[in-house]
Amino acid sequence: MSTHTPEIETVVAAAAAAAPVFAATEATDRARALVGVADALEAASADLVEVAMRETGLSAARLNGEVKRTSVQMRLFAETLVDGAYLDARIDHADPAFVLGSRPDLRRTHIPLGPVINFSASNFPFAFSVLGGDSAAILAAGCPVIVKAHSGHPKLSDATGKVAQDALKSAGMPDGIIHVIHGREAGVKVLKDPRIKAGSFTGSIGVGRLLADIAAARPTPIPFFGELGSVNPVFITGASIAERGDEIAAGFLSSVGGSAGQLCTKPGFVFVPESSNLAESLRAAAAATDAAEHRMLDPRIAKSYSERRDAITTTQGVTSIVSGGLRFDDEGHGWATPTVVAVSLADFRVGAGALLDEAFGPLSVVVSVPEGTDLAALVPEFYEGNLTGTIHLSSAEATGTTENAPALRALANQLARQVGRVLFNGWPTGVAVSPAQQHGGPWPVTSNDSSTSVGNAAIGRFIRPVAFQDAPEAFLPQQLRDDNPLGVPQSVAPAGESHSWGTGLGN
Amino acid sequence: MSTHTPEIETVVAAAAAAAPVFAATEATDRARALVGVADALEAASADLVEVAMRETGLSAARLNGEVKRTSVQMRLFAETLVDGAYLDARIDHADPAFVLGSRPDLRRTHIPLGPVINFSASNFPFAFSVLGGDSAAILAAGCPVIVKAHSGHPKLSDATGKVAQDALKSAGMPDGIIHVIHGREAGVKVLKDPRIKAGSFTGSIGVGRLLADIAAARPTPIPFFGELGSVNPVFITGASIAERGDEIAAGFLSSVGGSAGQLCTKPGFVFVPESSNLAESLRAAAAATDAAEHRMLDPRIAKSYSERRDAITTTQGVTSIVSGGLRFDDEGHGWATPTVVAVSLADFRVGAGALLDEAFGPLSVVVSVPEGTDLAALVPEFYEGNLTGTIHLSSAEATGTTENAPALRALANQLARQVGRVLFNGWPTGVAVSPAQQHGGPWPVTSNDSSTSVGNAAIGRFIRPVAFQDAPEAFLPQQLRDDNPLGVPQSVAPAGESHSWGTGLGN
Repeated sequence: MSTHTPEIETVVAAAAAAAPVFAATEATDRARALVGVADALEAASADLVEVAMRETGLSAARLNGEVKRTSVQMRLFAETLVDGAYLDARIDHADPAFVLGSRPDLRRTHIPLGPVINFSASNFPFAFSVLGGDSAAILAAGCPVIVKAHSGHPKLSDATGKVAQDALKSAGMPDGIIHVIHGREAGVKVLKDPRIKAGSFTGSIGVGRLLADIAAARPTPIPFFGELGSVNPVFITGASIAERGDEIAAGFLSSVGGSAGQLCTKPGFVFVPESSNLAESLRAAAAATDAAEHRMLDPRIAKSYSERRDAITTTQGVTSIVSGGLRFDDEGHGWATPTVVAVSLADFRVGAGALLDEAFGPLSVVVSVPEGTDLAALVPEFYEGNLTGTIHLSSAEATGTTENAPALRALANQLARQVGRVLFNGWPTGVAVSPAQQHGGPWPVTSNDSSTSVGNAAIGRFIRPVAFQDAPEAFLPQQLRDDNPLGVPQSVAPAGESHSWGTGLGN
Repeated sequence: MSTHTPEIETVVAAAAAAAPVFAATEATDRARALVGVADALEAASADLVEVAMRETGLSAARLNGEVKRTSVQMRLFAETLVDGAYLDARIDHADPAFVLGSRPDLRRTHIPLGPVINFSASNFPFAFSVLGGDSAAILAAGCPVIVKAHSGHPKLSDATGKVAQDALKSAGMPDGIIHVIHGREAGVKVLKDPRIKAGSFTGSIGVGRLLADIAAARPTPIPFFGELGSVNPVFITGASIAERGDEIAAGFLSSVGGSAGQLCTKPGFVFVPESSNLAESLRAAAAATDAAEHRMLDPRIAKSYSERRDAITTTQGVTSIVSGGLRFDDEGHGWATPTVVAVSLADFRVGAGALLDEAFGPLSVVVSVPEGTDLAALVPEFYEGNLTGTIHLSSAEATGTTENAPALRALANQLARQVGRVLFNGWPTGVAVSPAQQHGGPWPVTSNDSSTSVGNAAIGRFIRPVAFQDAPEAFLPQQLRDDNPLGVPQSVAPAGESHSWGTGLGN
């Protein structure tokens, strides 16, 4: 019946068999196992980083930082498990006097979905790959994960998978809860397998949509959490440029050029008043820093960036601010320095078709906007969903008391409606791994904007609610017991409350 | 451009225009408005119930109970808004010593999705219709709702919509936040409209799948929360029948016959040991109660039930326990009394193709199971997702210390994996409107099992997370401010914590 190769069938069968066993592990044991994986990853980092450098061209410093981030991510999820708030444990006491007639004892928590396939990303060979944020969230939730390795770092993926398997085994976790597979065709077949209960993905809008459509069209549809492309618009007021234009220019260039611009949070568009002199500050900053060339991740990405860059720089009305560079070496690898171009709002409107798609590389477009333009209206005019939207304000504007405060507030509100994270006076690259992080947003930046792919709220993607009615204590999950042996937050609705619902509000 | 009729275009445009205004209302003002709607619904109930009786054939007692439930639902959501826990407000303080380098101030909350279309149900003309649970959750979330009225009660839908519009206006809410439209074609066009940000539905698996596929295939996909069919398996131990077989039989018959079985939580299958004498108790209970005929909701549903009933009763190996009845009056309406049939597990396996689909009416199948059968294994053998799964235990078995305790625990765990609500010693009909309620579950019982359609957790379907980074206080939503003017629960991550993540666990 199965259309898998024998190896893939073994993987899927093992994940399915492991699911109920893994789901039944104690959260604290899973937390300990995640810490064990984090320790093992750090212990193996010298070898792994060497493999990663060969496969991705990223620097040792960048990769070592990424290993640290990846292990910290695991430790954060361990904390999340011990804390237990993610379970959203709710207890409604039986209530014979309930307003709609006797209410039974009801208790609700969340349980793991089952095996998940995670399609990993090219640009973060650790943090969004085999042991990245998605895998950490999936394992924390108690779901087996099958990682479809990115073709950009296959050996690193296998080596990381081995580290994880050994560490999970040492921690007493069941076999079969993490596997690495290769090949898009194999990945698609696993996504279609009825034993798989959810999917996650980090990559392009095109591939993400393809996979989301497959997940939705299955005989049994499953949730699919794709984190796709983003262009991250930035709005900079004239007053903030007057106050600290050089600082803004330096921060902007550094954000555009970091990791050769191959970040989903790279600021792709910057709107400034046409009267401002940010361009001058940018030229000065570029001249002062003499940006080093960065190798792009792989020849395919470099070629695609080269085409996008040519299309943008040759669009009518587009002029150069920082010319940047892109050269190919003998092995076909691209080496890039930041490119910043300028365009007037009028020409941006005309050329939007050529300009708006993400340029996955170190390029950004500065749009100069006439005085009095309704900035909030520009957001829906040009963009659907984005990971981030940024506003730079002067210190006076930040008080919310300047004449333009209503327009700025309207801009912030409009950004909130269309992005996952609204930033002030900063740059969107560098996504903190933290409880209040939100990395996601409306289509096309994700295929499902109900959650995040960075930070511990990401665990919510891989669990679902279940309630127990009048369950004898011997049949209740621990987090729902009256004596609360796990010490998790429990939200309790005592008997007798329902008659007062809404009465304190009047009309 | 719009393919809508002028009336529908007006409705969609009004909902889209109202969305940002409604989203900006204070939660306490929305709470007050919901209480106003609840009051208005109760004040108008005499007139509305009269219309409902004519259109649905349901009794005044049942409909009055439903109005009460509908208004209580509104009041529960008002409480939910004032409480504010649904916002999941998270505050990470800026942390210069963060383990991965300086962390900005990050604050995360949830905001409304925007206009939602809600396809209402036939069988609850109040509680799952124009002002039902979905609409209450949508309005509470701060989203305009367009209700596609069910064709079974069009006049009631319009009248209820008018009550809601007037009450919301009196409460100072913006125009355009609730509309009632008619016709499936119009509904589908609205679901496809890019201004619509989510959909909800209560009805059949077939129609639900059709609409879910439309929502997923849009150029901009949107979440679609369909609550579809369910057959709600029940497992009754021999010891519980020995202890209180007559009580179980009476409860079962009452649950099957209530609302003429036209409930998504009707127990469709009951598994009993073949040595038990539940059939005798059922016959006695049926004879004693002399169940009154109930009119079915409409001729189409009655005809469909008649066909399902014939298919089931004529399946090989199926015998009658309570013969029940179904007759059609001169207007084509069906009048039904409960039918209970028996089948052996062996014959159930052979006849599963004919037996397993939902019979939307007062019919249930008792499957007699040989001693020693692995009950947990029967759940995935016969079922995908269900709203509920039920276990009846004896008082000794409820302690979890009897010899069969491991098998019963395995059964409970397996049900939890496949249903939204696991019940003990009760019947699934009668769904309490309550914070810990879970009404939903794995496909095909919903098209999205991340939430519930009854209880206040349902508000989570119509909001999405957004984070603010280094936002000046003047630009922060109130629930994220340090002085917490709304008094909502805030989960705070102070600076300095990150170095200890996972360290308390060891390995």
